[in-house]
Amino acid sequence: MEENKNKKEEKINKVSELRHDPVTGDWVIIANGRGKRPDAFKQNRIKVDDNVRDCAFCQNDPSKDILIYKREDGSWSLRVVQNKYPAVAEFGNGLDKRCEGLFETINGEGTHEVIITADHRHQLGELKSAEIAEVLDAYQERYVALMNHKHIKYISIFQNHGKEAGASLGHPHSQLLAIPVVSPGVNLELCCAHTYFLNNNRCIYCAIINQEKETKERVVFENANFIVIAPFASRAAFEMWVLPKDHRPYFERISQQEKLQAAEALRTALAKICKGLNDPAYNFYLHTSPCDGEDYYYFHWHIEILPKTSIWAGFELATGVEISAVKPEEAAEFLREQKI
Amino acid sequence: MEENKNKKEEKINKVSELRHDPVTGDWVIIANGRGKRPDAFKQNRIKVDDNVRDCAFCQNDPSKDILIYKREDGSWSLRVVQNKYPAVAEFGNGLDKRCEGLFETINGEGTHEVIITADHRHQLGELKSAEIAEVLDAYQERYVALMNHKHIKYISIFQNHGKEAGASLGHPHSQLLAIPVVSPGVNLELCCAHTYFLNNNRCIYCAIINQEKETKERVVFENANFIVIAPFASRAAFEMWVLPKDHRPYFERISQQEKLQAAEALRTALAKICKGLNDPAYNFYLHTSPCDGEDYYYFHWHIEILPKTSIWAGFELATGVEISAVKPEEAAEFLREQKI
Repeated sequence: MEENKNKKEEKINKVSELRHDPVTGDWVIIANGRGKRPDAFKQNRIKVDDNVRDCAFCQNDPSKDILIYKREDGSWSLRVVQNKYPAVAEFGNGLDKRCEGLFETINGEGTHEVIITADHRHQLGELKSAEIAEVLDAYQERYVALMNHKHIKYISIFQNHGKEAGASLGHPHSQLLAIPVVSPGVNLELCCAHTYFLNNNRCIYCAIINQEKETKERVVFENANFIVIAPFASRAAFEMWVLPKDHRPYFERISQQEKLQAAEALRTALAKICKGLNDPAYNFYLHTSPCDGEDYYYFHWHIEILPKTSIWAGFELATGVEISAVKPEEAAEFLREQKI
Repeated sequence: MEENKNKKEEKINKVSELRHDPVTGDWVIIANGRGKRPDAFKQNRIKVDDNVRDCAFCQNDPSKDILIYKREDGSWSLRVVQNKYPAVAEFGNGLDKRCEGLFETINGEGTHEVIITADHRHQLGELKSAEIAEVLDAYQERYVALMNHKHIKYISIFQNHGKEAGASLGHPHSQLLAIPVVSPGVNLELCCAHTYFLNNNRCIYCAIINQEKETKERVVFENANFIVIAPFASRAAFEMWVLPKDHRPYFERISQQEKLQAAEALRTALAKICKGLNDPAYNFYLHTSPCDGEDYYYFHWHIEILPKTSIWAGFELATGVEISAVKPEEAAEFLREQKI
């Protein structure tokens, strides 16, 4: 009888679920019917070459630095350079909007920069919080330098780690892309957050944080100013969001105290997937308000971390419904347990 | 002087562009400043094991067939089975909608089937049009069998080819996933197509086809009933859409004549990327109207083919703006030239 009950519970537990993203309204499938345990996601991935001698980022030409941070001994700890293969061109051609019937084109006005930490062999999750804080310093400094350009409406800051996540070089680096349109992915979050604010007179992300703090089952880490959660409708196994606990629409206005706390939270999240999943490839990116001059009082900036635990294939591309094989609650428990 | 002019033209030609998707309003970046020629995308990809003897799809158990098509000699040419690791569970538990504060969950009611062609070594682009027509027969037959189930709102049919595109087995197969929600990706196309129809009293896809037939620069192939184009705002190099030339909202109502023409168009598109890009990994999927009982008179079913020519990394994930390194006009020209 007890055994039957257990079997039944196991079966129910293994029924896959569709979960509704409370921000965007998107659906994801939590296919834990596939029965994978969290540690089945430990990676044995292709490492990108780690030959320091041939590394373009180790050998960089100082005359090309947009920004450089130096240590007391004069060596550099972080530098920012133009991307050698930029996705958008340098400023100067103008937007030159043209329409041909249904089709509209503008020039790729903007800039594409690379933020490089000095240590070739250690990714962000292996650095100290103070070193991550310096990376956030650089993000903020470059953001502020670019945000008022008349053609720039959105600045995206992200990091690809590992070949499977699209990194072409092994040396740890982040990227900054300033573009002349508000990107559709961010736009959806903005529209939904706006509607929620109008209807409820509060921020949807603040509401999520409140609920997560009550149940605690998806909380991975928390300090004075930041919280790390496995989002309820995770799009990939071990997805995490790093959010300021107070309502903050604009990353670029982060204070020095908040930056240190954000650095600790980001480092903890990255160190935990590095430890728990054996240094998986991942992407992380900031979602912050556009810099187009509008007032985004209803938005709440945050960082989204997507470990590359699966490939989004035909179904995900076709439907926009991602399939994740681990329950976010199990992922959060697994990540909490990682000693870093 | 002439040389200078050429250099200037080359430079202008290499400025990256942002293109606006006329259906969804999304933006893509055509970063042909990266200067890749179409044949630089020839693949040298990891092939999945092609050991026929150990292949689960070659050795399949006939008692598990949901559908089987046989040749005159009695051997099977196509079969449909349940996916061994389904993303959604079998029908029977009910949707059981539950809400916890902001978070909504329903059971993954639905079905996940696999459509297998007999030939282990040859992907769809290497088959004959008549064989592809049989695959479309199976898609339609299974679609019609499932579309009236009370919990099913959307049926997604897709194929992943190659490990990089998410295929776990080398044996060519398509998949069908019937789910209890209209997927957000399709929903966006539906909403935009609806708005366009209300404003213009015509279908946005019909309008696109008309414009493409006039300029011809992005047309890859055309027969009596179908057209293959490289979409204006391609999200990946060599993306193609296969569209019925007449306005058709519902794939499942395709006639026998149309099916033969669709098969020829799909075969041509797949054979051209197979030839031109050395058998790249790809995903293709149908976008057709939901089966939730609503009237989608304004939609236009089609197939989208996305060769895996790059990895969507942090920027694409962050912004929803995809970067493609080849102009769709150049991709279309390159594909037109492939003799198959």
